[in-house]
Amino acid sequence: MMKKLLLFVLDGLGDRPNPMLNGETPLQAAYRPNLNALVSSGLGGLMYPVRKGLVCGSDTSHLSLLGYDPEAVYTGRGPFEAMGLGIIAEPGDIAFRANFATRSREGIIVDRRAGRDIPESGSLSKKISFTMKGTQFIVREGVEHRAALVVRGKGLSPEISDSDPHEQGRPAMKVKPLSNDAEHTADILNEYLDRIRDILDTSPENMDRESRGKPPANELLLRGAGITPRLEPFNKRYGLNGACLAGIPLITGIGNLAGLHLLKHPGATGRVDTDYRGKVREAVRALDVHDFVLVNIKAPDIAGHDGDPLLKRDVIEKIDDAMGQVIGISDDTVICVTGDHSTPCTTKEHSGDPVPILFSGNGMRRNGVRHFDEVSCGYSGFDLLSGDVMTMMLQLSDKLEKYGA
Amino acid sequence: MMKKLLLFVLDGLGDRPNPMLNGETPLQAAYRPNLNALVSSGLGGLMYPVRKGLVCGSDTSHLSLLGYDPEAVYTGRGPFEAMGLGIIAEPGDIAFRANFATRSREGIIVDRRAGRDIPESGSLSKKISFTMKGTQFIVREGVEHRAALVVRGKGLSPEISDSDPHEQGRPAMKVKPLSNDAEHTADILNEYLDRIRDILDTSPENMDRESRGKPPANELLLRGAGITPRLEPFNKRYGLNGACLAGIPLITGIGNLAGLHLLKHPGATGRVDTDYRGKVREAVRALDVHDFVLVNIKAPDIAGHDGDPLLKRDVIEKIDDAMGQVIGISDDTVICVTGDHSTPCTTKEHSGDPVPILFSGNGMRRNGVRHFDEVSCGYSGFDLLSGDVMTMMLQLSDKLEKYGA
Repeated sequence: MMKKLLLFVLDGLGDRPNPMLNGETPLQAAYRPNLNALVSSGLGGLMYPVRKGLVCGSDTSHLSLLGYDPEAVYTGRGPFEAMGLGIIAEPGDIAFRANFATRSREGIIVDRRAGRDIPESGSLSKKISFTMKGTQFIVREGVEHRAALVVRGKGLSPEISDSDPHEQGRPAMKVKPLSNDAEHTADILNEYLDRIRDILDTSPENMDRESRGKPPANELLLRGAGITPRLEPFNKRYGLNGACLAGIPLITGIGNLAGLHLLKHPGATGRVDTDYRGKVREAVRALDVHDFVLVNIKAPDIAGHDGDPLLKRDVIEKIDDAMGQVIGISDDTVICVTGDHSTPCTTKEHSGDPVPILFSGNGMRRNGVRHFDEVSCGYSGFDLLSGDVMTMMLQLSDKLEKYGA
Repeated sequence: MMKKLLLFVLDGLGDRPNPMLNGETPLQAAYRPNLNALVSSGLGGLMYPVRKGLVCGSDTSHLSLLGYDPEAVYTGRGPFEAMGLGIIAEPGDIAFRANFATRSREGIIVDRRAGRDIPESGSLSKKISFTMKGTQFIVREGVEHRAALVVRGKGLSPEISDSDPHEQGRPAMKVKPLSNDAEHTADILNEYLDRIRDILDTSPENMDRESRGKPPANELLLRGAGITPRLEPFNKRYGLNGACLAGIPLITGIGNLAGLHLLKHPGATGRVDTDYRGKVREAVRALDVHDFVLVNIKAPDIAGHDGDPLLKRDVIEKIDDAMGQVIGISDDTVICVTGDHSTPCTTKEHSGDPVPILFSGNGMRRNGVRHFDEVSCGYSGFDLLSGDVMTMMLQLSDKLEKYGA
């Protein structure tokens, strides 16, 4: 029988001992009979994202979990920030991290963040998203003054300098080409920046801000140009028809770059109020027509960033409850459950602590782990890097071609 | 005292839980007091061939166990298939995987496998093995229609195309040079193929086949040209006088490429009826004149490919019995016992599951493993890659030069 592969990435799953949980991690403190049953029937261990001790983002970690080497394909934060804000970037797109900023009449950047509080950033972003001379400019707002710009067109190069002067009291910089190939890109960006200065200066949003004594968001500072990488299609690399189910645009964007079929579930919000049972049910259903399904559940990471161990424990219990639906399918499916990194509630940021991982499926070895958590999985002595996960799933489902004879 | 190194590779040793053995692996189910005594007196762990999860062949794994990087020296299957069929390939030899096929009078390949059943392939192979214009052509038959061709001479290049059209209904292809250096190689191969077409067409074996209504084996289709790699001699690399004792030609061939002295033991058959005690005795004896001895015992792999867990358990018990002879020699010898890959009886093919490994010797640390099997060795948390094994044996025998000052 052709075995299927089901990979659950519980975002930010790993944690550290928490005083509010009597020194246990949220995962240890959670009632998790289904995760424990899965690990008991297979292998439990620790997974290090990318390499031991590295503090990874969700982007580098998911690339690596899918078997792509971030060293080779992670071309800077620009494209991934843009995907995180919901722009579905395409290979070859040039992307920037951007700030809304305040420019004085004399052309000096007097506030690199335009006062930080910019509820108008969404409508401003729409006004400065347009096509000019066959090149498409897409701006999407982020939190506070943050935004991303994606430039799509022919003959574009990421080898250009920032327009962001990186300090206040100076004018915005002209974008300069850093290689011969990049002259066209620099020219069209400078023309675009001139055009949007007019639009932003005269927009009702900024006039209103000025009338209320707030700094206008009348400049878009660009930095960190990067080209969206062309990934070898997942289906071609592994000979598997793959799909992706995620509630947050960063992971959807990476799935899109890998050529995964993007599944939608209306209740998948990417927040702690997501429809856990519905999402897992949808993933299991998708195995009818796909060989591989990646599911990202964002909620544990949110609770980690909020520094709320009780919330993190609770969302893990909801995930465990939803996982009951996969207990029965391991006869013809290799299941892997892990995280993309740790987000300890005690530090509220990503950490380099390894993440528990389990593999479960019919006929495979067991290594005696009975509890799915950071400590129990560590005792097994089984550890691996995120880049090994696809290889392990392929070999456990007897799909890997032999290296040698 | 100058310590000796003794490396036992139990081919295809690793396995998965088997329902016929109450969910144990054949190794777990075997009575193995000597293997358990060896691991109890030293280190037990898991060894991943080449890298985690990879499904390795015996060729890539043995190269790696001897410390050669397969990525650098594994030049395609041709040379290793040829060695597997018993041709002792030399560095620089060009080798092909080959099929006996059936060519119609019009020159069309009408059966790429000449009916598969070719008991005459041995005598035909001899007839088409000869020297022409200073270049030696060596054909050796394999199972059914399979064979290998080794071409030995001056100025040869592997940069040539296949003669195999890879589908029926088309003529065999002319061999074409794929680089400027390869013109001579393509020319002499095309001349060789023309010459053997005459020989095969008029051979009594094929006339007899035709008279019995069987498709004649009158064409040799070549594919996957590879050059036999030149390995840095083992003795030079490690400063050790090394030897190899194996019952199967693939491992003998690799030992030959590494410059190991090839030991012979008449009872070493490479089958499950091999003389286990005699082979181990011969290896121990060889330590009188050699610093390092590699012993390959093929039987567990055969039982795995046969899907016979009881047989696999039984051959492991015979190996354990023979191992009694090495219990006493660990005062001046570092012993390592492992496999080259797993061959689970449940799948009858190689898998990427790690293989148990033990190191035993006087004065070294123990890590508390009491039983030599896939599960007990995993609990220790000690794991390594096949490429680390020589380094470990060298350091445990106090032979490794300091890295730094």
